[in-house]
Amino acid sequence: MRELILGGARSGKSRYAQARATEWALPVRYIATAESLDHEMAQRISRHRQDRPEHWEVYEESIALGALLKDSIAPDRVVLVDCLTLWLSNLLCLNDHNRFAQERQALLDALAEPVGPVILVSNEVGQGVIPDNALARQFVDATGWLHQALAEQCERVSLVVAGLPLTLKS
Amino acid sequence: MRELILGGARSGKSRYAQARATEWALPVRYIATAESLDHEMAQRISRHRQDRPEHWEVYEESIALGALLKDSIAPDRVVLVDCLTLWLSNLLCLNDHNRFAQERQALLDALAEPVGPVILVSNEVGQGVIPDNALARQFVDATGWLHQALAEQCERVSLVVAGLPLTLKS
Amino acid sequence: MRELILGGARSGKSRYAQARATEWALPVRYIATAESLDHEMAQRISRHRQDRPEHWEVYEESIALGALLKDSIAPDRVVLVDCLTLWLSNLLCLNDHNRFAQERQALLDALAEPVGPVILVSNEVGQGVIPDNALARQFVDATGWLHQALAEQCERVSLVVAGLPLTLKS
Repeated sequence: MRELILGGARSGKSRYAQARATEWALPVRYIATAESLDHEMAQRISRHRQDRPEHWEVYEESIALGALLKDSIAPDRVVLVDCLTLWLSNLLCLNDHNRFAQERQALLDALAEPVGPVILVSNEVGQGVIPDNALARQFVDATGWLHQALAEQCERVSLVVAGLPLTLKS
Repeated sequence: MRELILGGARSGKSRYAQARATEWALPVRYIATAESLDHEMAQRISRHRQDRPEHWEVYEESIALGALLKDSIAPDRVVLVDCLTLWLSNLLCLNDHNRFAQERQALLDALAEPVGPVILVSNEVGQGVIPDNALARQFVDATGWLHQALAEQCERVSLVVAGLPLTLKS
Repeated sequence: MRELILGGARSGKSRYAQARATEWALPVRYIATAESLDHEMAQRISRHRQDRPEHWEVYEESIALGALLKDSIAPDRVVLVDCLTLWLSNLLCLNDHNRFAQERQALLDALAEPVGPVILVSNEVGQGVIPDNALARQFVDATGWLHQALAEQCERVSLVVAGLPLTLKS
């Protein structure tokens, strides 16, 4: 069972994803993609950490997400990835087109026939004005295309607004 | 009955909220939070004014919204607040962390056990690219967290797109 | 039958609109509104072209969309316009208020009593932070008001997220 949970900034998507993970009544492996590059980011990461149950297994991976997912997905565990948008942003910042394509494909491959439950969290970023800087537009494009590809693979897709899920696919 | 109506810029959320207020067949107290700081804002305010029924009681309050709400909510009246986003923005511009926390709590308290119908309008601002200036990010965070807190309290939550409501909670 | 398909950047709205057009089992007239002003735009246009069936009739019109629609709508053809946001942006760049009002009205008139199926694609741009430049705000306003007016006329309205349609009206 693959689930994609989309939502804007501070939409409550992480909280909703954590609630969904808990419903499986299985051990949870939490994969964080955030890199703590500055004070604000460190604060956001620490806040997420406080929100999570203490007994969850936590991995941090900012680039090679596909490989870690492949190793993590298992029938007796829920894997929760939060969030894909930061991972995409990390990848784009490498400024290496081949690496980007490889890592993206590795993610889609890891999810192609998963042997256990996976929950993916990602930011909806495309419903504002098209940004006037080229890197931001590239980010919006990469995010939107990834969401489309994942939404095809996933059995369940929601958009969270104000903490409340709208079902897009189920 | 507490209702939260979210929507993007020019989504028709105010018009929808006014229609909802009218359905109660009670006198309406309209609370505007906009401050007329420049010509563009004055125009937006005047347009909203033209859209409203003339016989509605109108209050303007840009900061102490919780106190006004507490005095306003009554069984024989519908209170309509438009909009929370501007109020949050006014509060953040004070740059006074304690005042912010106080006023935010006063709002949540006023809504905790309301003695009459309240309709709250607010902007969805978190579904675009994360802004690159820190104040805008703070605004997006504050808005998203407020929406989550209010959505828990409210019996009814909608997202308006192109004038059409999507029900998030009812 | 008039259908409005909204969605953010890279939301899959064009692909969904093309699938909807194909369902009619009628010849399709595709109206593109994009102007190829720079390399990036040329790439986006070319990508859209590759996605489209080769046998579709293609028209390009960046300004006088209402007149072309009036001539195009017919019982034995589906007309697909992609997208209104670029057309609005082209219009605003003319910086001619009268022309803007005329062309906008011509569009609404062409759709008032259409003699055949029309599918309109447009970008949701109002769910991010209000932009700090006046032209971008004007664009967000014009887009939101147009969506509201069209959503009233159309029999069917959807919001596409991650390639999946949410029905707003049907």
